[in-house]
Amino acid sequence: MTTTRTETDSFGPLEVPADKYWGAQTQRSLLNFPIGWETQPVSIVRALGVIKQACAEANKAAGALDARIADAIVEAAGEVIAGKFDDNFPLVVWQTGSGTQSNMNANEVIANRAIKILGGEIGSKDPVHPNDHCNMGQSSNDTFPTAMHIATAMSLRDVALPGLDKLAAGLEAKSAEFKDIIKIGRTHTQDATPLTLGQEFSGYAMQIRNGIRRIEAALPGIYELAQGGTAVGTGLNTRPGWGEEVAANMARITGLPFVTAPNKFEALAAHDAMVFMSGALATVAGAMYKIANDIRFLGSGPRSGLGELILPENEPGSSIMPGKVNPTQAEAMTQVAAHVMGNDAAIKFAGSQGHFELNVYNPMMAYNLLQSIQLIGDAADSFTERMLLGIRANEERIEKLMKESLMLVTALAPTIGYDNATKVAKTAHKNGTTLREEAIALGFVDGETFDRVVRPEDMIGPKG
Amino acid sequence: MTTTRTETDSFGPLEVPADKYWGAQTQRSLLNFPIGWETQPVSIVRALGVIKQACAEANKAAGALDARIADAIVEAAGEVIAGKFDDNFPLVVWQTGSGTQSNMNANEVIANRAIKILGGEIGSKDPVHPNDHCNMGQSSNDTFPTAMHIATAMSLRDVALPGLDKLAAGLEAKSAEFKDIIKIGRTHTQDATPLTLGQEFSGYAMQIRNGIRRIEAALPGIYELAQGGTAVGTGLNTRPGWGEEVAANMARITGLPFVTAPNKFEALAAHDAMVFMSGALATVAGAMYKIANDIRFLGSGPRSGLGELILPENEPGSSIMPGKVNPTQAEAMTQVAAHVMGNDAAIKFAGSQGHFELNVYNPMMAYNLLQSIQLIGDAADSFTERMLLGIRANEERIEKLMKESLMLVTALAPTIGYDNATKVAKTAHKNGTTLREEAIALGFVDGETFDRVVRPEDMIGPKG
Amino acid sequence: MTTTRTETDSFGPLEVPADKYWGAQTQRSLLNFPIGWETQPVSIVRALGVIKQACAEANKAAGALDARIADAIVEAAGEVIAGKFDDNFPLVVWQTGSGTQSNMNANEVIANRAIKILGGEIGSKDPVHPNDHCNMGQSSNDTFPTAMHIATAMSLRDVALPGLDKLAAGLEAKSAEFKDIIKIGRTHTQDATPLTLGQEFSGYAMQIRNGIRRIEAALPGIYELAQGGTAVGTGLNTRPGWGEEVAANMARITGLPFVTAPNKFEALAAHDAMVFMSGALATVAGAMYKIANDIRFLGSGPRSGLGELILPENEPGSSIMPGKVNPTQAEAMTQVAAHVMGNDAAIKFAGSQGHFELNVYNPMMAYNLLQSIQLIGDAADSFTERMLLGIRANEERIEKLMKESLMLVTALAPTIGYDNATKVAKTAHKNGTTLREEAIALGFVDGETFDRVVRPEDMIGPKG
Amino acid sequence: MTTTRTETDSFGPLEVPADKYWGAQTQRSLLNFPIGWETQPVSIVRALGVIKQACAEANKAAGALDARIADAIVEAAGEVIAGKFDDNFPLVVWQTGSGTQSNMNANEVIANRAIKILGGEIGSKDPVHPNDHCNMGQSSNDTFPTAMHIATAMSLRDVALPGLDKLAAGLEAKSAEFKDIIKIGRTHTQDATPLTLGQEFSGYAMQIRNGIRRIEAALPGIYELAQGGTAVGTGLNTRPGWGEEVAANMARITGLPFVTAPNKFEALAAHDAMVFMSGALATVAGAMYKIANDIRFLGSGPRSGLGELILPENEPGSSIMPGKVNPTQAEAMTQVAAHVMGNDAAIKFAGSQGHFELNVYNPMMAYNLLQSIQLIGDAADSFTERMLLGIRANEERIEKLMKESLMLVTALAPTIGYDNATKVAKTAHKNGTTLREEAIALGFVDGETFDRVVRPEDMIGPKG
Repeated sequence: MTTTRTETDSFGPLEVPADKYWGAQTQRSLLNFPIGWETQPVSIVRALGVIKQACAEANKAAGALDARIADAIVEAAGEVIAGKFDDNFPLVVWQTGSGTQSNMNANEVIANRAIKILGGEIGSKDPVHPNDHCNMGQSSNDTFPTAMHIATAMSLRDVALPGLDKLAAGLEAKSAEFKDIIKIGRTHTQDATPLTLGQEFSGYAMQIRNGIRRIEAALPGIYELAQGGTAVGTGLNTRPGWGEEVAANMARITGLPFVTAPNKFEALAAHDAMVFMSGALATVAGAMYKIANDIRFLGSGPRSGLGELILPENEPGSSIMPGKVNPTQAEAMTQVAAHVMGNDAAIKFAGSQGHFELNVYNPMMAYNLLQSIQLIGDAADSFTERMLLGIRANEERIEKLMKESLMLVTALAPTIGYDNATKVAKTAHKNGTTLREEAIALGFVDGETFDRVVRPEDMIGPKG
Repeated sequence: MTTTRTETDSFGPLEVPADKYWGAQTQRSLLNFPIGWETQPVSIVRALGVIKQACAEANKAAGALDARIADAIVEAAGEVIAGKFDDNFPLVVWQTGSGTQSNMNANEVIANRAIKILGGEIGSKDPVHPNDHCNMGQSSNDTFPTAMHIATAMSLRDVALPGLDKLAAGLEAKSAEFKDIIKIGRTHTQDATPLTLGQEFSGYAMQIRNGIRRIEAALPGIYELAQGGTAVGTGLNTRPGWGEEVAANMARITGLPFVTAPNKFEALAAHDAMVFMSGALATVAGAMYKIANDIRFLGSGPRSGLGELILPENEPGSSIMPGKVNPTQAEAMTQVAAHVMGNDAAIKFAGSQGHFELNVYNPMMAYNLLQSIQLIGDAADSFTERMLLGIRANEERIEKLMKESLMLVTALAPTIGYDNATKVAKTAHKNGTTLREEAIALGFVDGETFDRVVRPEDMIGPKG
Repeated sequence: MTTTRTETDSFGPLEVPADKYWGAQTQRSLLNFPIGWETQPVSIVRALGVIKQACAEANKAAGALDARIADAIVEAAGEVIAGKFDDNFPLVVWQTGSGTQSNMNANEVIANRAIKILGGEIGSKDPVHPNDHCNMGQSSNDTFPTAMHIATAMSLRDVALPGLDKLAAGLEAKSAEFKDIIKIGRTHTQDATPLTLGQEFSGYAMQIRNGIRRIEAALPGIYELAQGGTAVGTGLNTRPGWGEEVAANMARITGLPFVTAPNKFEALAAHDAMVFMSGALATVAGAMYKIANDIRFLGSGPRSGLGELILPENEPGSSIMPGKVNPTQAEAMTQVAAHVMGNDAAIKFAGSQGHFELNVYNPMMAYNLLQSIQLIGDAADSFTERMLLGIRANEERIEKLMKESLMLVTALAPTIGYDNATKVAKTAHKNGTTLREEAIALGFVDGETFDRVVRPEDMIGPKG
Repeated sequence: MTTTRTETDSFGPLEVPADKYWGAQTQRSLLNFPIGWETQPVSIVRALGVIKQACAEANKAAGALDARIADAIVEAAGEVIAGKFDDNFPLVVWQTGSGTQSNMNANEVIANRAIKILGGEIGSKDPVHPNDHCNMGQSSNDTFPTAMHIATAMSLRDVALPGLDKLAAGLEAKSAEFKDIIKIGRTHTQDATPLTLGQEFSGYAMQIRNGIRRIEAALPGIYELAQGGTAVGTGLNTRPGWGEEVAANMARITGLPFVTAPNKFEALAAHDAMVFMSGALATVAGAMYKIANDIRFLGSGPRSGLGELILPENEPGSSIMPGKVNPTQAEAMTQVAAHVMGNDAAIKFAGSQGHFELNVYNPMMAYNLLQSIQLIGDAADSFTERMLLGIRANEERIEKLMKESLMLVTALAPTIGYDNATKVAKTAHKNGTTLREEAIALGFVDGETFDRVVRPEDMIGPKG
């Protein structure tokens, strides 16, 4: 049996677990929203710690908050940032759309923790009040959007961007490794003119590098913080300069270039910066999809597929087919990519649904975006580590497939014209013969010319 | 420090936690897929228990499996069904797309548990082998899709359908309660002709009732099980009649009308039944969205909104605005609805991406669909309980808004014609007067006629 | 220079082209919505004709409308149904969300046409008034949703369902044609156990047949018509029985089983039946995607791909690569499928956005759904005609790929156990040898046993 | 009866309309793809003209193409750019996924037109050959993606960005006009603390300004052109420097800063730049949605809604309710926004589905993106012109609603504490009294203090 203590809010008293710091509003939310499995992401919890610390510092500096109380809040908030109270944030995603109860969760935990630091009685709201002190100069309406941006920026920096950079670097390394392997190109999934395997991988690398650039292009909006708008964007109950000051504090605490949003009405009522970031993430997810899909097809087989790549074997692939090995990392990555596109649809929908001074889809938008960030980063990392870096080229097979291709005829077109070259290819296809045989038989070139002109190694770039 | 024991698979030995039943393939998957926060839903775990039990029974009945081994598997699987080993299924969603490792997780846990029941040594695969016995006549390729359908059907029956039925019943009750309250209608968000508040809620109720019917219309495909297709749909390594037999067992175990899928190639390579069910769920989510959105607008205020409905007060609504109360259950429900639409997009995408004999988006599709089911059921229940049933009509305000409406002029149109009625409404609007005043002033009717014709209580239905 | 005549509405006079029947409200809408390229689909125009005819008949029967006027409206509406005035409906999709101006477009065209039939002066509204007569007992709010359902049902019957049936029949024919060709199965895009090419195509056929069934399961909601709800669902300005009567007329005119919607409030404020139908269409689009994608991969080559299927050659495939032939019908179909999924997202979004008594996304939802219907039907038809029916099996290559597969080892597992069978496959893979060689060399079976057990023709179904 | 002439391609002769310039491949595509209503956007046609002109110039400069032929191609292509041959591009969107036939359509039209300019016989391919001359140094695989980027960039510059700029400027003008009107704020659709109407509109303006910035942030990728990659990205059959040269020509012709893409493999196989741009467009569509939705609610009424804004009256709003006026421009804009989100989903899906060296969703992606651009630009323009600029504030009603609000109590909280302020608001709400009355009655402040502290005009910003 859990022991409890009594906490109160304006709706009355409630019993809360004695070993937790949260108060009545958190407990009430737990009771009021028995919906789903998903709790507030940890990165949101930590970001709320950042905010509470930054605001207490600013309130202390301005003399608005008693130094002793402010210091205790700063200390308690620091513990939240450090992850010491992750288990004191039990609320689900599917709560009030402003995230008010999660903001109050932070206020209550930090207030009670600060009370304890100061030797007071937990639950007494004395000497530290969750609203009057921890939430001083703040509203959930600016705090939660600020937490969304902070959590997004930190997760991008710590998870998604490193993962993508690792993936891009891996692709670049493979591109270099494979630079001399000439292979058949495929367009419309059909045989086409040759390129090098290194060129093929260079395209993949470029997709991811561009993806990183797109995320970076979407970051400035994320660095703009709503904090200072308070209830409706006006900054009621704050001082001039407050927004700039707390944004500077948050920038210092996190090491990220946060600034105060130039228009707080927009910052509360809309989350377009999150929506745009989701679009950037979905774009790179699409790139990850294409790359993983290509690689599993190029590595299909081992005997009856394309078989150009030899993929690492990580685990038994089948519970019924002995010896089967599957491109499971590619499967994880494509599943992640498809899921991120679903998240993007949800985020776009929610982002358009603000009313007047507030968008009340905060926890849901944050959950989706932070999940996308985590999944992209993790999948990119795991795919690189366990799949990409272990890929080997099956050079023998690559050469065989390339040499058989009828599309080498394209090199002949500038010499004999498109229409004649078409005849050569079609005749060779019909007869099951080689291009060389038919080009000569049709009288378009002699063997020497053919050999001079149709050289795969001359077909992998412009000719000077 | 956790103690471990050694388990092996075809890739070699691995240390697994001594206090868990899972084996090497589960452990290997844990190491290979450090991606995201999301683990296999519990309903999938339980459904795998159902399958393993049903198959062991059928294998015993056919004499293919030693009765002692079969009985132990049946007992162990029963414990999985009962939820005793939920914590023995640690794998994430973002793994191999066939769910092979989760199928093996079930095979390993049940094999080891059965070994223990029979007094053997855990990890020895003797006398119960995870593949040869627990997976007998099965492949992940038919087992996991079967688990997806079973988990879907059970979750719909146990969570989503009861929640929706409760919501529909609540709306019907309110429709009856409000049947005599005449209010202004609104089209294009603008004043329109009157209806009763009960009629308005009857439309909501009908949306949810239809939503339930749509889910039911999508259920037959869910009741068709892939089990029996084994590796590629052929039923290799099974007996004739196997599919029918195990489906019958699963129907008995779950109390749901499962049958064997008529075409196993389709059942493995495509999950169209899941996709269609997702569409049904997204449709009812759209209905929930509309209803919750209407209710929060009709209850907007308390003083400066539409204010027709008085909404229950569940918790303090603002950390900065004292006394504020918000329609938080409506917010939870609209967030859920928007999220379900994102899930639907992800499911549709993934459903189209099968290749040849298999769709490898199983865990991801299952995760999304089961989450949608859970959220719809929970949100419908919570919204009904904590919001809908407590709604009261603000009759005074409703009457005031209704009586002022210029659109009552519509009742005049059959008498004086559309064009003249337009003049009445426009003049009253311009002058800030009443329709009656202007209709008389413009000479179209006398007062008596006006009073006889323009009666809100006669405008809420066809006139006989 | 176009000559014009003057038409008027309650906003004043406007010049309209003299050679067109439309009036002031249509013209005003043309001026007010210079948005995009997309005009109202023809099927909506024809459906409006159906409604106007059905209502005039009912109004005549009830004596509400002068027989001469009614007959002229019936005749004029019949011409709209017959497509004679398609070019008199110039309005864009992106207009008022109720479709009011398109309803007025129909009223105006039919009124003026009826005036002409009766020898009156076009534009005079005499003896036929667009509102008082053509729109008698109707509102745009019930008329346009009714037109949406009628157009949907007719387009499904005339375009989508015939196209899908043709596709399913084509797949069934190919399944029968290919029933004796044993080929390698592929799961995770990797070699798996064998099946027949006929079995593979039977899965495709089943997907489409199920898709048709799903559309049919979504049809009952489409057959329910909003007509009779008038302005807000109450049926104001109609008679008891009106809804039933006009629905019956529309059923007779179209030959489709239309009925009046049981709840008109739902029928005006929500379009869930359209949303659900969109989900059914997106589901079958996903199936079409999978099938077309498989076929282009199975037909990839001609020399360096999988090459199991020989695809028809319809046009030159490349402006630079002579002789190239591409699976263009598969490309058209997959583009259509992806587009239908986008339409589905738009429809789902819009469907959730009704407010109070009306959803004002009518033209946009209709445009998207009708486009999906048209594209699915056309693409299915064209793909069947120009791609599917011309596919030939490359039997030589199919047999070669199948015989080389290591996954035939699965047939050995029941005899030598999963673990030993794994050793055989892995050793053969490593050594580039055959399963038979290694199974014997490893001492698990003798040659005779191997030959008896590992027989592809015995692996394509359960064993009795 | 249309007269025809005979044209040929490698598949044989075909009759084409004598009055059109297109050739056999275009005609063949017309016959092969009877799918849907949608033809290639005009902007794609014009962009193909740009490409053909730029390449002919470069080929002439390099001496690769006879000057007389080159000049004729340049002239003919110029006519395509000028829109003289829009009706010579009849092909549908749903064709080969590379857009090959549309590229050939351009080659054929320009070749025949150039032949005519040079006095030759149309259809003779002499002296100008569609492949050998018009397509020299090109492949559909680089040409069509280049056309996609050019059409996108031009449409953004000419349609979407001017429309959005007009909308932003309109919102800014209204923000300035309304800067002194203090109104109630609304969060969670419930009464909140006050702000000015100008502040509210400033948030809208910022959303659109940021939207423009996001489009600009996505433009650099669009300015990178695939031209020079030819068949698979290698640049086969081109000269070193070709890509740079033709990009420079295209930049000159269009006045846009096009450059050659740094990696042509990425540029052919992926369209991530289009996907990212779609995300930027969907983000601003979401902003447009929110703004239009707010405005129609703020303008709801005229008597029974919020009624804070008086919206312009553009057309009769109802076919049944005389005098009704609806926010139709807002409806057009929200329909457009929802549609753009559907397009975004389709584009994201398609963007992920490239295979190996080519993405074959070109026409479909282009169609969707160009439609989004057109609709956003047109809707923004029309909404500004016909709705936004005509909005007037209903100052009397705004003041009334603001003064009644209980949320003015927030100004008291710093003085009497959050908990006491809550009591004041709740008591006034319960008793239907004013905050002032209850604050005094509860003994928290005297009247003078109340009047000094609770001043709406002091609540619209931080206090110094």
